Amino acid sequence: MTNDVRAYVRDHSAELLADLDAWLRIPGISSEPDRRDDVIRSAEWFAEACRGVGFPTVEIWPTPGLPTVYAEWPSEDPDAPTVLVYGHHDVQPVDPIDLWHTDPFEPTVDGPVLRGRGASDDKGQLLFHLLGVRAHLAATGRATPAVHLKFLIEGEEESGSPNFEALLRERRQRLDCDVVVITDTGMVAEDMPSSVTGMRGLVLADVRFHGPDLDLHSGVFGGAVPNPVTVAARMVAALHDADGRVQIPGFYDDVVELTDLERELMARTPFDEARFLATSKSRALAGEAGYSTLERIGARPTAEVNGIGGGYQGDGTKTIIPSDAFVKLSFRLVANQDPATITAAIEAFIAEHTPAGISHRVRWAGDGVAPCLVPIGTPAYQALSKAICAAFDTDLILPTREGGSGPEAAIQQALGAPMVFLGVGLPDDQIHAPNEKVTLSMLYKGAEAAAHLWGEFAALGRKGLTS
Amino acid sequence: MTNDVRAYVRDHSAELLADLDAWLRIPGISSEPDRRDDVIRSAEWFAEACRGVGFPTVEIWPTPGLPTVYAEWPSEDPDAPTVLVYGHHDVQPVDPIDLWHTDPFEPTVDGPVLRGRGASDDKGQLLFHLLGVRAHLAATGRATPAVHLKFLIEGEEESGSPNFEALLRERRQRLDCDVVVITDTGMVAEDMPSSVTGMRGLVLADVRFHGPDLDLHSGVFGGAVPNPVTVAARMVAALHDADGRVQIPGFYDDVVELTDLERELMARTPFDEARFLATSKSRALAGEAGYSTLERIGARPTAEVNGIGGGYQGDGTKTIIPSDAFVKLSFRLVANQDPATITAAIEAFIAEHTPAGISHRVRWAGDGVAPCLVPIGTPAYQALSKAICAAFDTDLILPTREGGSGPEAAIQQALGAPMVFLGVGLPDDQIHAPNEKVTLSMLYKGAEAAAHLWGEFAALGRKGLTS
Repeated sequence: MTNDVRAYVRDHSAELLADLDAWLRIPGISSEPDRRDDVIRSAEWFAEACRGVGFPTVEIWPTPGLPTVYAEWPSEDPDAPTVLVYGHHDVQPVDPIDLWHTDPFEPTVDGPVLRGRGASDDKGQLLFHLLGVRAHLAATGRATPAVHLKFLIEGEEESGSPNFEALLRERRQRLDCDVVVITDTGMVAEDMPSSVTGMRGLVLADVRFHGPDLDLHSGVFGGAVPNPVTVAARMVAALHDADGRVQIPGFYDDVVELTDLERELMARTPFDEARFLATSKSRALAGEAGYSTLERIGARPTAEVNGIGGGYQGDGTKTIIPSDAFVKLSFRLVANQDPATITAAIEAFIAEHTPAGISHRVRWAGDGVAPCLVPIGTPAYQALSKAICAAFDTDLILPTREGGSGPEAAIQQALGAPMVFLGVGLPDDQIHAPNEKVTLSMLYKGAEAAAHLWGEFAALGRKGLTS
Repeated sequence: MTNDVRAYVRDHSAELLADLDAWLRIPGISSEPDRRDDVIRSAEWFAEACRGVGFPTVEIWPTPGLPTVYAEWPSEDPDAPTVLVYGHHDVQPVDPIDLWHTDPFEPTVDGPVLRGRGASDDKGQLLFHLLGVRAHLAATGRATPAVHLKFLIEGEEESGSPNFEALLRERRQRLDCDVVVITDTGMVAEDMPSSVTGMRGLVLADVRFHGPDLDLHSGVFGGAVPNPVTVAARMVAALHDADGRVQIPGFYDDVVELTDLERELMARTPFDEARFLATSKSRALAGEAGYSTLERIGARPTAEVNGIGGGYQGDGTKTIIPSDAFVKLSFRLVANQDPATITAAIEAFIAEHTPAGISHRVRWAGDGVAPCLVPIGTPAYQALSKAICAAFDTDLILPTREGGSGPEAAIQQALGAPMVFLGVGLPDDQIHAPNEKVTLSMLYKGAEAAAHLWGEFAALGRKGLTS
């Protein structure tokens, strides 16, 4: 089986490359209004590609913004599990264009890599899925996939998915599934296959403190009235203790701690701390005591102040007691912290740190983003692990955690299904930056892993996936 | 004696009023370059007035900015003490002009008050001195004052005295004296004569914290690198304990505590806390525990943050770890805090609150302003008290403290002489604001007090003044 899949992928790799070359020429930048037609063309191109592979149902779903591609290929086995694959066909802008060595929309093969905007994020990865389906059918001799396949390919991911949650709600019936496969992430290294097992959630607050109704002379009033900037600073300072632990009561109550196995595997993940430090252009690392940098980024919740302001902003000095102060805060959450619960805890914390004579107001950016976690003991993760191991000729994949936040938790919550991450980007793919590239051998291995995954999921069956 | 002085002042009060009317018509606003010639005219007017009273030496001292008037009238008694009177002939701007009920430079008598820019601050007060000298001579039958009199009348006080310290250094010999009388302040109420006994010093710092060399994505780096805004906030928060006491090591070491008598007199000073609160447009009072609001403003040193900034300043939120943060701090000092010592202590405190990975830089606004204190037990203050009591028909004056900072400490330090404050402004004189006024009876009492003061100083003699 493994050999059949590998041979098929090898024999058809040139087709993947040709498809990628064609698709990457469409500059579907979702954040640029002028590129609206290109994003629509990009959706149409991918829809046509799905039809070419054999998907019997391919639809383009309009949204108030840019369209999503939906493709469905039922298994001939009605009891087979249903798998929903999530990805996106839109791409990032290309500025600063001067830093590109080649035209971002003229795909260029350079030895083992192909350069171009979207090569890794996310067009290349979606195309490994199409080749993966073909390899799956060829190697198993099936006419239909071993699972009911649903592809949901968004067109606004790079502009914050403004219409995606509404679409999930509206199309909930059609999207029903037993497992979700997210294909928009990467691996640690070409010889170190891995899978994302967590993404952090996010809560954003804009806090305003108001003191005197006007700036006061600090000679006349200094030392006798409360100062809103001092109050803001004290609130920020109170967010952490000396060990970097967040001091908001209840903040850690629902945090799923790393298991010993997860910490061991995380410690085995190659991580160049010196390089991370250099990339950060900081002069030291710092964070919650008792956790490694990788753990701090991926598996621990944080409170960060993103901006602060109040009082005199000009050159030199001015002897005033300011009237107002603001603090912009972001909280990265991990499973199972609930954005609503955390929001309430932060709100109470801020109120408690607002003394008499100062009023405050908190504005929240929406409802926040939930964290997501793929427990490595789940059947879905084990199936994913087997599929990746077969593709990469290894017996272990590393579970990784992403520090950032994305729509994945919303998908998981909307669809109520277990989720896994199958993505073959590499850390130096320069996604969102000039000279984006993808390593072609990673795409071929991705195709193999996908081809194996449908069989693994089918073997588990619907009940096995959720047990 | 008292009656002779009072009679003389009463008989010549119309002349003070006529002089004030003439002088106030000269719009000598030192902060407005267009008014330069008016400030010079104002200096010339006062110089001529001094000559008219009989000062044998009257000079106009140029500075790189606007001129100072210097007048000298030696006593025929060569061993008499030398008294230097400080005031200023320049005035504040008049904006917002719309809020004036009369033309600021058309002096208007309205019952007991005279309205016009400079009526109280400081032209009216300087003119009571000229009448005071005349009353002193008339009542004592002397041809020359009982003390060597020196008047030093600045022309840039309302624009921050930028050239005054240099002038004090350059003219140090000519300005030599045994006691300084500051005439640029006020009293608690018409029926509650008082004298300023302290002004706070001032140290101003602009602190910058630098973290990563660029704003970082808080998803990728959040929780793993130090955040300069957090560092700034923690430093500001660490400035005070829960009781509002400044936590900079050594900050209070040189503070002269209020004596029991001073606290008792301060408690007797009428102070409408509700009105102060209303004026502050704050919703609560706050400050160092264990001290009244008046004590907090006048007799206690403070640390205030005047401005803070860093990171994202726009609407909404942005998930960054900021590269930079700044904090603008002002410290009001009281005797005997030394600006240089306090500056060093603050510098050390900030360094101690700058963790690894963050760099900092502090910019100081000059060398700071020293606090000044008139101990109420000194012979100079006792002499002042007697002179004011005689003028106001009372047996006690209240010692008050000013929360603000001025050039007085620099005068005291430059000349090395004891200092007292003889000023008859009232709290509702609207100095620096529209509709400035002066209560005419206060000017006449000021003239009486000045007339008595020269005799009191002469009676003490040079040795008595400094013992």
